[in-house]
Amino acid sequence: MTAMEELPLRPELRGRTPYGAPQLAVRYALNTNENPHPLPPALLADLQVALADAAAGLNRYPDRDATALRTDLAAYLSRSSGEPVAPGQVWAANGSNEVLQQVLQTFGGAGRTALGFTPSYSMHPIISAGTGTSWVDGHRRDDFTIDRAQATAQVREVQPDVVFVTSPNNPTGTAVELDTIAALYEASSGVLVVDEAYAEFARPGTPSALTLLPGRPRLVVSRTMSKAFGMAGLRLGYLAADPAVVDALQLVRLPYHLSSLTQAAARTALAHTEQLLATVDAVKTERDRIVTALPGLGLTSVPSDANFVLFGHFADSAATWQALLDRGVLVRDVGLPGWLRVTAGTTEETDAFLTALGEVAGTPAPRLGGSPA
Amino acid sequence: MTAMEELPLRPELRGRTPYGAPQLAVRYALNTNENPHPLPPALLADLQVALADAAAGLNRYPDRDATALRTDLAAYLSRSSGEPVAPGQVWAANGSNEVLQQVLQTFGGAGRTALGFTPSYSMHPIISAGTGTSWVDGHRRDDFTIDRAQATAQVREVQPDVVFVTSPNNPTGTAVELDTIAALYEASSGVLVVDEAYAEFARPGTPSALTLLPGRPRLVVSRTMSKAFGMAGLRLGYLAADPAVVDALQLVRLPYHLSSLTQAAARTALAHTEQLLATVDAVKTERDRIVTALPGLGLTSVPSDANFVLFGHFADSAATWQALLDRGVLVRDVGLPGWLRVTAGTTEETDAFLTALGEVAGTPAPRLGGSPA
Repeated sequence: MTAMEELPLRPELRGRTPYGAPQLAVRYALNTNENPHPLPPALLADLQVALADAAAGLNRYPDRDATALRTDLAAYLSRSSGEPVAPGQVWAANGSNEVLQQVLQTFGGAGRTALGFTPSYSMHPIISAGTGTSWVDGHRRDDFTIDRAQATAQVREVQPDVVFVTSPNNPTGTAVELDTIAALYEASSGVLVVDEAYAEFARPGTPSALTLLPGRPRLVVSRTMSKAFGMAGLRLGYLAADPAVVDALQLVRLPYHLSSLTQAAARTALAHTEQLLATVDAVKTERDRIVTALPGLGLTSVPSDANFVLFGHFADSAATWQALLDRGVLVRDVGLPGWLRVTAGTTEETDAFLTALGEVAGTPAPRLGGSPA
Repeated sequence: MTAMEELPLRPELRGRTPYGAPQLAVRYALNTNENPHPLPPALLADLQVALADAAAGLNRYPDRDATALRTDLAAYLSRSSGEPVAPGQVWAANGSNEVLQQVLQTFGGAGRTALGFTPSYSMHPIISAGTGTSWVDGHRRDDFTIDRAQATAQVREVQPDVVFVTSPNNPTGTAVELDTIAALYEASSGVLVVDEAYAEFARPGTPSALTLLPGRPRLVVSRTMSKAFGMAGLRLGYLAADPAVVDALQLVRLPYHLSSLTQAAARTALAHTEQLLATVDAVKTERDRIVTALPGLGLTSVPSDANFVLFGHFADSAATWQALLDRGVLVRDVGLPGWLRVTAGTTEETDAFLTALGEVAGTPAPRLGGSPA
């Protein structure tokens, strides 16, 4: 029996543990910001046909450039943002994690530095480490918002090669103002990545950073089909940027990285965009219901533009996490003392969460939507 | 219009071009070592069911550890090699390229060195570069075989962190003796990767390096479902190694990297292993037919344990490549002056290749199998 430490691991990996939320069998899995709504039957019917078609050709390599898929993604981004996005501005990979890894392999790496405003998506520093890129924590205010003057000053001082801005931010939920993103771009001489994994859940009046793309060749906007599109199992992340960025990514992408099945399924889902995104409003309603109910339980939350809510404050958030799990409700301990994160999903899930939370907080839950008393 | 060079690219990427064979619409695509045999109807029927099932759950993240798939892969490796392989010894990713990238992120990277015996699979140095790993060309004899004494001496001198041995080798075709692999392992203090992408096509009496795994915790054997299994479009590569290696890879793998569709399709294909591998003998027959026919055209080849043949010698291999393409036959110019590589597939493909080659070589093709004259 060999121990991992006996192997010639890279020194900086020693003592680390793998990233990942617990994959537990629970009644209410509200820990990974999935969309719990079942996929529309019309989509499932079309997927069956498209996947069977793709399966018949599986002995051949997929389209290495995923041209048709990138065309469909560009059309979706153009429609939803009002900003024309061309297929040559779009790149896709197996989840936004792989997209971001390719960005770091191209513009980061050993001897280079990435900066992100923590707490934020915890994979940003992990993927940076995996590509040998040094990491610098950016500053946030105590309320988790970004102070534009302080943030741009820090970027000017550190001169990172890659800057990450997550908007809406995960795990705190709040979107970043476009003026702040534009100021960070000006302050930086590196690549600015705006991670918009949760963009479709933003409150009205929150434009996408896609509208900032013209004239900013170092700006990258990343997206995913895992959240609003409800396709977490598909692993389809993508980005929009200047075509030169997409050209540069070709130097590090693994050839044929996107399977024929992934390309076919993603295109089919995009053809059903309207039905898939029809669940977004329902999810936002549940999110806002959670936010509204928390004060009645003596708790608070961070304003959210996403499909989750960061809630607290707990003297012992680990104990609360366990007490909720004991009641069949799995939320996420994101490592912020006093806070936990819950995914907004169906009405039933919200009911179960608020009931369990009321028991745990020692305060009866407020009247639940749809339940008689 | 921004040029790629105006972006803050990593310096070592400047001037590079993306890897990839031309994806051209031709009658006979014999350039990427795909398996041209259509997938068995019974497999396609099962895939339709399995993929529809997986599609219904696409709103949820996939099993991050791909436990069931790794169990099936371990069973296949155990059956085919006679060497017991446990699920905890197996890891899978989107093509063997991603598996190898994870190995390099874990055991290579900046300040570390990989060595491979060129000419070999050209992605080995490219993935090394993509992970910041320095690359050293290992020596081969003029006949492309590895001289055990010379190779081990070079490994002792360079002390690479990762050594690649491709067996059967691509693009030359020949398997490496297990004694040589064992000697290279002893000579090295790093990780030894035996890339067995083409193992299933080896001539009788060529055991897999899987049989060397016991007692060698730094040995990694990589495989793919793209070649013998005829599932290039699926993008499923995998490796077997000491469980400690698999544990270490968890530190760099992107979470949920393998989609639910990939896991379901790969498991379905593995359940049809016998039918899928039934085409291997037919492909080997065509390979050997090509090898046998070449001397009649005034040409030669390198002995092959794979589903392709490296053939030559041409005064101008680029001109020959173009002349074959003009006749609807796309082969691979692997950058070895005087040589070209052709994939062995169906009888019809071999006929077309030999006919075109006969015209190009100025020598009539020998009598073609199955054709009247």
